[in-house]
Amino acid sequence: MTATTKGLEGVVATQSSISSIVDDQLTYSGYKIDDLANNSSFEEVIYLLWNQKLPTKSELEQLKKDLAANMDLPDAVVEHLRSYDLSTVSPMAALRTAVSLLGLYDEEADVMETEANKRKAVRIQAKISSVVTAFARIRQGKEIVKPKKDLSYAENFLYMLNGKEPEDIEVEAINKALVLHADHELNASTFTARVCVATLSDIYSGITSAIGALKGPLHGGANEQVMAMLTEIGEEDNAIPYIKEKINKKEKIMGMGHRVYKNGDPRAKFLKEMSRELTELTGQSKWYNMSVEIEDYIKENKGLPANVDFYSASVYHSLGIDHDLFTPIFAVSRTSGWLAHILEQYENNRLIRPRAEYVGPATQQYVPLENR
Amino acid sequence: MTATTKGLEGVVATQSSISSIVDDQLTYSGYKIDDLANNSSFEEVIYLLWNQKLPTKSELEQLKKDLAANMDLPDAVVEHLRSYDLSTVSPMAALRTAVSLLGLYDEEADVMETEANKRKAVRIQAKISSVVTAFARIRQGKEIVKPKKDLSYAENFLYMLNGKEPEDIEVEAINKALVLHADHELNASTFTARVCVATLSDIYSGITSAIGALKGPLHGGANEQVMAMLTEIGEEDNAIPYIKEKINKKEKIMGMGHRVYKNGDPRAKFLKEMSRELTELTGQSKWYNMSVEIEDYIKENKGLPANVDFYSASVYHSLGIDHDLFTPIFAVSRTSGWLAHILEQYENNRLIRPRAEYVGPATQQYVPLENR
Repeated sequence: MTATTKGLEGVVATQSSISSIVDDQLTYSGYKIDDLANNSSFEEVIYLLWNQKLPTKSELEQLKKDLAANMDLPDAVVEHLRSYDLSTVSPMAALRTAVSLLGLYDEEADVMETEANKRKAVRIQAKISSVVTAFARIRQGKEIVKPKKDLSYAENFLYMLNGKEPEDIEVEAINKALVLHADHELNASTFTARVCVATLSDIYSGITSAIGALKGPLHGGANEQVMAMLTEIGEEDNAIPYIKEKINKKEKIMGMGHRVYKNGDPRAKFLKEMSRELTELTGQSKWYNMSVEIEDYIKENKGLPANVDFYSASVYHSLGIDHDLFTPIFAVSRTSGWLAHILEQYENNRLIRPRAEYVGPATQQYVPLENR
Repeated sequence: MTATTKGLEGVVATQSSISSIVDDQLTYSGYKIDDLANNSSFEEVIYLLWNQKLPTKSELEQLKKDLAANMDLPDAVVEHLRSYDLSTVSPMAALRTAVSLLGLYDEEADVMETEANKRKAVRIQAKISSVVTAFARIRQGKEIVKPKKDLSYAENFLYMLNGKEPEDIEVEAINKALVLHADHELNASTFTARVCVATLSDIYSGITSAIGALKGPLHGGANEQVMAMLTEIGEEDNAIPYIKEKINKKEKIMGMGHRVYKNGDPRAKFLKEMSRELTELTGQSKWYNMSVEIEDYIKENKGLPANVDFYSASVYHSLGIDHDLFTPIFAVSRTSGWLAHILEQYENNRLIRPRAEYVGPATQQYVPLENR
């Protein structure tokens, strides 16, 4: 056995054709994240991640049609979301349960043929934004809003969330966020999904486990914590004193640095620009200004640049989205990558089963209970 | 980065004090599996896995009391199990969903203090056998049976399953099966749970993801497949011809060999003996005899000895348990190990995030949709 590699840092666990991070450059199947963020719809990116090529117009139309046809939730899942007090649970725990439940209503859940798995991928991708938006509306005591078949994925997300068709800039922001978060190589939730389905378990098990992993504050929870920090800071003048105190107390500043990117997260700049535009538009520039001050200060003093989570906080906040829905939105996007990785794992599978180095008590003599 | 290690075979991903596999010997925190299988109740083993020492009498009594006090399911979870057609879903998908749902009714689900996590561990361990038995009974159109506080874990499992107090030999068989399956170092489901919670996600997310992984036929599904094979063989005379044909067709014989044990699975002999006794008692010795013939033949011709799954098939069958509940019983047992590993992961956490080697399309020039 090799030496223990805690956290498997730097260990290459698999080959993959889905995304690549080399020299601080992120590509999805060979396409630079900058090109995709500037030009592509989320649906194009879904197609790319699942097929390792960009779609033609007709391929894209077909995928859009398939997604639109599968967005409605089974009545039982909506009833389930109405059956308990949503205000007391973590939205990610609710999402984990609802997606697991969706599997019970998919007749093909355990059909392991490639085509069936691709159909399930479409269903899960289509329904996950319906689950998140239904959760949000039911929690607010509102009726759920059914998707419109002629809207894009980003448009439908905002439409189902707010009950009215969104402005162009709102759609642009959500679309960019969905594109930028869609995949990220073997991040912890994707790796969870791959370990899970490498037992040849089904795709719902894989996505459920990935949602569970993304729920963790060291992974998907960061942008919510960034917004909590910004809220605590409150006003621009308070930003640097607050951060200095944090650093003095050796507390972590969320949204800064990244295990994989050493010189900067290529995704951050797009959300930074969206944050600037949206906060200005909504008259809340202070969130953007505060963020820039913090970013500059941490970069100068700790050498850590902002990561993708940092500016997504003020973007989502400007869109009026509840802070505890930031991670579920991340899940809606990352589901496309999780599904791509699960399908890839099935194609060339091997059980993922590392070893542990035993460091517990040495061999013990068994003493019967009576004599203990 | 290191070279790709597909399946992470031989890679040491973490240190652990919970169980050890060295030279084909399995120990739980220093105690040989033979001693535990011969002498211990499942409750003792739960205590051992969670505390790295065997309990005193009073410590054991306290754990038993705590488990008994937490076995009842929330009404909502029972209603959930009555709300859909259980005959059409995988029992493991049902278990995955029900355990995720349990998390929504645990007020401490997201409280990450050590003591709160230990309380949740007791609740999950207590309730998981109630979920499996409630599922089994509701599926048969029967009323669920509430646990009795004065019964052991193994007794209660059989009591809740069958509605009558079990015979001693039945209890012995289930207790041994629970002890033998309780932990197994970094197996795929345990590793899934650790990767999931290393994001500091909650314990329900960890167990839900582990159930998803165990659901896979390369992991927990093996004993069900063994029984399917035995059923297909039907009669003793047919065993060797059937196996020869399988080998000729290069098909895998389930329940044979193990990635980690090279010369034999130390757990197999206990279930082999229980299988002998139980099949004799129920007048179904053919399942045992058939199994022995297959084991001997495969050992001689392929060099592969039987693993723990092989004889558990005829043991559970002799106890009258539906074949598709074999894996859920495995889950009831392994939950004790999953919980131990999750608690251990929290104690000294680091995000588990390996790398992938990118083998997809080389850098692509982005072509706008209009020109594709």
